[in-house]
Amino acid sequence: MAQAIAHILAEKQKEISVAEFFERNKHILGFGNPTRALVTSVKEGVDNALDACEEADILPEIVVEIKNHEDNECKITIEDNGPGIVKNQIKHIFGRLLYGSRFHAIRQSRGQQGIGISAVVLYGQLTTGKHATISSKIQDDRPANLMELAIDTNKNRAEVIRSAIDHWDKPSGTRIEVSIVADYKRGRRFVYEYLQSISIVNPHAQIIFREPDGTEHVFERTTDALPRKSIEIKPHPYGVELGTLIKMAKNSKSRKLTSFLKSEFSSMGDRTTIAVCEKAGIDKNLNPKEMTRDQFQVLHRAFKKVKIMAPSTECLSPIGETLIKRSLKHETQEISPEFIITASRPASVYTGNPFQVEVGIVYGGNLPKDTSVKLLRFANRVPLLYQQGDCISTQAIASIDWRRYGLDQPSGKGTPSGPAIFMTHVSSTQIPFTSESKEAIADIPEIENEIKLAFRECARKVQSHIHKKVRRQKTREKFELITKILPEIAKKSAHMLGKPIPSLDAVITKIMDVIWIEDLIEYEKRDILPIQTTLFSEGEEQKTPSPWVTKSTLLVVNYKNRPQKFILYALIPEDAKITSIRPEPKKITSRYIKWQLENIQPAKKIDVYFELLGLDKGDFDENDLYVENINPNYVIGADKWEGE
Amino acid sequence: MAQAIAHILAEKQKEISVAEFFERNKHILGFGNPTRALVTSVKEGVDNALDACEEADILPEIVVEIKNHEDNECKITIEDNGPGIVKNQIKHIFGRLLYGSRFHAIRQSRGQQGIGISAVVLYGQLTTGKHATISSKIQDDRPANLMELAIDTNKNRAEVIRSAIDHWDKPSGTRIEVSIVADYKRGRRFVYEYLQSISIVNPHAQIIFREPDGTEHVFERTTDALPRKSIEIKPHPYGVELGTLIKMAKNSKSRKLTSFLKSEFSSMGDRTTIAVCEKAGIDKNLNPKEMTRDQFQVLHRAFKKVKIMAPSTECLSPIGETLIKRSLKHETQEISPEFIITASRPASVYTGNPFQVEVGIVYGGNLPKDTSVKLLRFANRVPLLYQQGDCISTQAIASIDWRRYGLDQPSGKGTPSGPAIFMTHVSSTQIPFTSESKEAIADIPEIENEIKLAFRECARKVQSHIHKKVRRQKTREKFELITKILPEIAKKSAHMLGKPIPSLDAVITKIMDVIWIEDLIEYEKRDILPIQTTLFSEGEEQKTPSPWVTKSTLLVVNYKNRPQKFILYALIPEDAKITSIRPEPKKITSRYIKWQLENIQPAKKIDVYFELLGLDKGDFDENDLYVENINPNYVIGADKWEGE
Repeated sequence: MAQAIAHILAEKQKEISVAEFFERNKHILGFGNPTRALVTSVKEGVDNALDACEEADILPEIVVEIKNHEDNECKITIEDNGPGIVKNQIKHIFGRLLYGSRFHAIRQSRGQQGIGISAVVLYGQLTTGKHATISSKIQDDRPANLMELAIDTNKNRAEVIRSAIDHWDKPSGTRIEVSIVADYKRGRRFVYEYLQSISIVNPHAQIIFREPDGTEHVFERTTDALPRKSIEIKPHPYGVELGTLIKMAKNSKSRKLTSFLKSEFSSMGDRTTIAVCEKAGIDKNLNPKEMTRDQFQVLHRAFKKVKIMAPSTECLSPIGETLIKRSLKHETQEISPEFIITASRPASVYTGNPFQVEVGIVYGGNLPKDTSVKLLRFANRVPLLYQQGDCISTQAIASIDWRRYGLDQPSGKGTPSGPAIFMTHVSSTQIPFTSESKEAIADIPEIENEIKLAFRECARKVQSHIHKKVRRQKTREKFELITKILPEIAKKSAHMLGKPIPSLDAVITKIMDVIWIEDLIEYEKRDILPIQTTLFSEGEEQKTPSPWVTKSTLLVVNYKNRPQKFILYALIPEDAKITSIRPEPKKITSRYIKWQLENIQPAKKIDVYFELLGLDKGDFDENDLYVENINPNYVIGADKWEGE
Repeated sequence: MAQAIAHILAEKQKEISVAEFFERNKHILGFGNPTRALVTSVKEGVDNALDACEEADILPEIVVEIKNHEDNECKITIEDNGPGIVKNQIKHIFGRLLYGSRFHAIRQSRGQQGIGISAVVLYGQLTTGKHATISSKIQDDRPANLMELAIDTNKNRAEVIRSAIDHWDKPSGTRIEVSIVADYKRGRRFVYEYLQSISIVNPHAQIIFREPDGTEHVFERTTDALPRKSIEIKPHPYGVELGTLIKMAKNSKSRKLTSFLKSEFSSMGDRTTIAVCEKAGIDKNLNPKEMTRDQFQVLHRAFKKVKIMAPSTECLSPIGETLIKRSLKHETQEISPEFIITASRPASVYTGNPFQVEVGIVYGGNLPKDTSVKLLRFANRVPLLYQQGDCISTQAIASIDWRRYGLDQPSGKGTPSGPAIFMTHVSSTQIPFTSESKEAIADIPEIENEIKLAFRECARKVQSHIHKKVRRQKTREKFELITKILPEIAKKSAHMLGKPIPSLDAVITKIMDVIWIEDLIEYEKRDILPIQTTLFSEGEEQKTPSPWVTKSTLLVVNYKNRPQKFILYALIPEDAKITSIRPEPKKITSRYIKWQLENIQPAKKIDVYFELLGLDKGDFDENDLYVENINPNYVIGADKWEGE
């Protein structure tokens, strides 16, 4: 009897093809309902187009066209000007799940799984029974290849239904045309929002969106500079799993442990490699293929006991604080926010994967005060539209006690309420999405921690900003009172006594008893750029220079009754180039200018001036100032310098 | 140049093995961090054990043992008394992702994807480099087979490292032993909660949990009755995708459209089949293999234009209202809630998959009043512990305006606050989980709608319950006032006048002017059960009878000044058997008893009595009463009968 059951059950055991699996579980890929299916299809197509262009150093020009048929059927066409796909790869890339070029490479890219675009083809076939048509051209002087594809889900392989030659004008590119069941009426708004968001974080891309009724939206590129190209790197020893280490050793060509470690991992120089072997107490000349599990385990533990340099961040392509600020400013024009603050964390590692967190907070203006703050989430320059609740960014934000920073938050947990937008961008060689639909980042403690740190930094800046504003406001009131009333009294008294009006400077300084720093930013468009006598220039990236010059004037007035001398620091955005500094600074780094201000007499002022190149109008709209060698309580308009 | 790029890119294109994919994306399977990894491993093992026992009609006895080593390594052993697995299947079931028996069958089961348990083996290997050991015995008189397995992730196949004979006492069963990196200290609580929850919704299972320190927890079975076995069914035409229809037709052995439709779909009898063909305007004798895509499309549309019977719910195994109530009562003993209300929806269909929603609300008692209501989520009798935010049940609850039902909910959206626990159970032949970790149900509109309807029904009951309570309370106060003060006045007046004390019944009825129904429930344990003169018995399922008799007495008093007659309905839990009814009812159905109460004289009362078998003590603790043919405003303790 028992035998019978196990044998009967055994007969039902069967392999499940990955295409069958996802056909059945299409909601996992983001095709759960006709609205989401529309957005997901557009998203997968555009992400692919952007990745392809990036790999070939091409400025992307992408056209998304949607035609709407009866019965909720949409025909979606996405065309790019990328490098194209060679003929014999077309059927695999578009007709096979888990097939791609980016899965095995450790570098930042939008698509990684080799699932997305073939899932769109699969979904189209499942819901409309129609085949997808792909055209691709790889060389200017040759025609494009056109293929009509069906997916055999039992085998997870494409069938080429039709193959033909197509004539295109553009030098190279790829076009996919797929019919799917979709709800255009409901989905339209999300497609538009997605395209808008993706153009914000990919300012080098031009995206054209043609709606079924013929309306055409053009999201223009705002820069001709390609984003820094991410470089492929080797895995980092921190966080590599023991099982992966063993597998790598078994597959390695190295015959010595040291050469294995040096050649297959990043950040493993001679010294570190030997330190690891010594810490593990393992002979550095062992053949990695012959090592036991226990030896690997000891080695694996030794990794964490030795200080190993952080992985190179060349594999990452963060957006950058300036661009984030610009994007947020652009996004929130109508809101006219009080201020925008950003924070960038240094690159970090989880399970061997480098990642970096950038965040921004938009505060005040017309933002509603009594609803939850709006969350904008991005991963590797792709907006995340769904599954906000389970994203680690949402959870990280919820775990901060925002009441300390002036936002409403019942019980000190959860998404806070207040007039703010919180933006998170995570870039990584591998974004740990909670599912194949790539809508939320999984709860990886290392990433959560970095997001928290970034938001805390932002929150402190928000707090200091509000604090500074309040102090300046109070001092200004006092100042205005003094400068209006005292002269009146002096004038009247002098008149009554028939004496000349006395100078009040000394009295005013005595009452004010502060150093007042006024901050003025102006922008000037210069058609012919001056020869860039760049004092500091970071990064090797190509850039079309912005025609705007940002002119910053700091008016430092001594309202104290003794001459003053102190050190003044002005923070500079990372990608700005500094020119024309007055007076001569004591030091310039990539992050700040430092002046030693000497001998400012009572009631006298000093003009501090500098110009920034490489920024657009409005990118830099307020100085972040710090002072040293003076009691910061006497300074209005700058904070205490806490060191670098 | 362009050619070069496309060709260079082509060289990087590669197939990704599904095991490699999930090794890299282990968080998708629920192994994102060492805490969750522990819970997920236990969960996958126990779910598998329960499914195996269910398939073989065996009362499950499951032992979960965890040993904790240094370096956050846990050895987990899960042993069941299921039917066992034949030798040549062991390596596939435990060592291959996407391999299983339940994916291709349309019936309710816990595991469906053929991923879970092999993912545990894969995760163990990845993090500890150790092999999993499986033992399985399929027949009493033969030894068990033991196998040590490694997974070759490049091929997604198991390697048998060791194969041996093992001696077991038990007649059959399976044991898996796997070492994983896990955080026992943090994860312990979740493992315990998971086992507790799973034993609540699987009261037929005995689960023993042995902790590393030797502590043993036994979750005893509370019933010997196996849950109704779910039957495998064919797909239902509503919601089957066009692509699937075409695929089914191409693979069908039927040569005629009619026989194809009748043999491959459920609910397709002769009449419906012909109606569909006629509506589509397609010759019913066509060979399905020769039909065009357009013909299939017309046919597909015709499905939705013809009324087709709902799919059989035999493939589903819901928990049942009584068991839900009992579980919730058990769960909330310490809270002593005011009341527990449940609602069961009829089975429905999404994309051809039958599903059914059951919900419950626990209200009041010591539950905190100013925090969000607690959500308990279950799918196919498995508790869902993570990703609450993105579960469709959470979203369905959030979309109801709970302020109307007396709960706090700022802006009428979101999870409400108040002293309540909301429980949702979805059973389906295919639960559409948002990811392979099976922690949240995707946003399928049909399922969302059913959850909403169920909770609205519950909410109305909550409202009516509160309303009834308030009315009864008010009337009781009035009643007590009258029955205390009036007799006193009468007594004093009579005494003063030297006359006998008058009867006050008529006066009291005149003032009260209501029908008062008092509800009393008692339980009696009978060692020897009476011969069950069951008046109504539903369902064919085997059951060990409960020794408890639920005795319900309804005291109906006429406090009006005229004789009264009306119809009284008492609702009965689905799985109860009714005995000993007094007076003779007019009608009994599976859901209610109906009495015609005649000629109740003023100030007189009628006792209505019935007994219920098949329930445990406390399952039925309050009557749900309705009246007809009388103004319900005059009746305290029953509501207006709205029809069946």
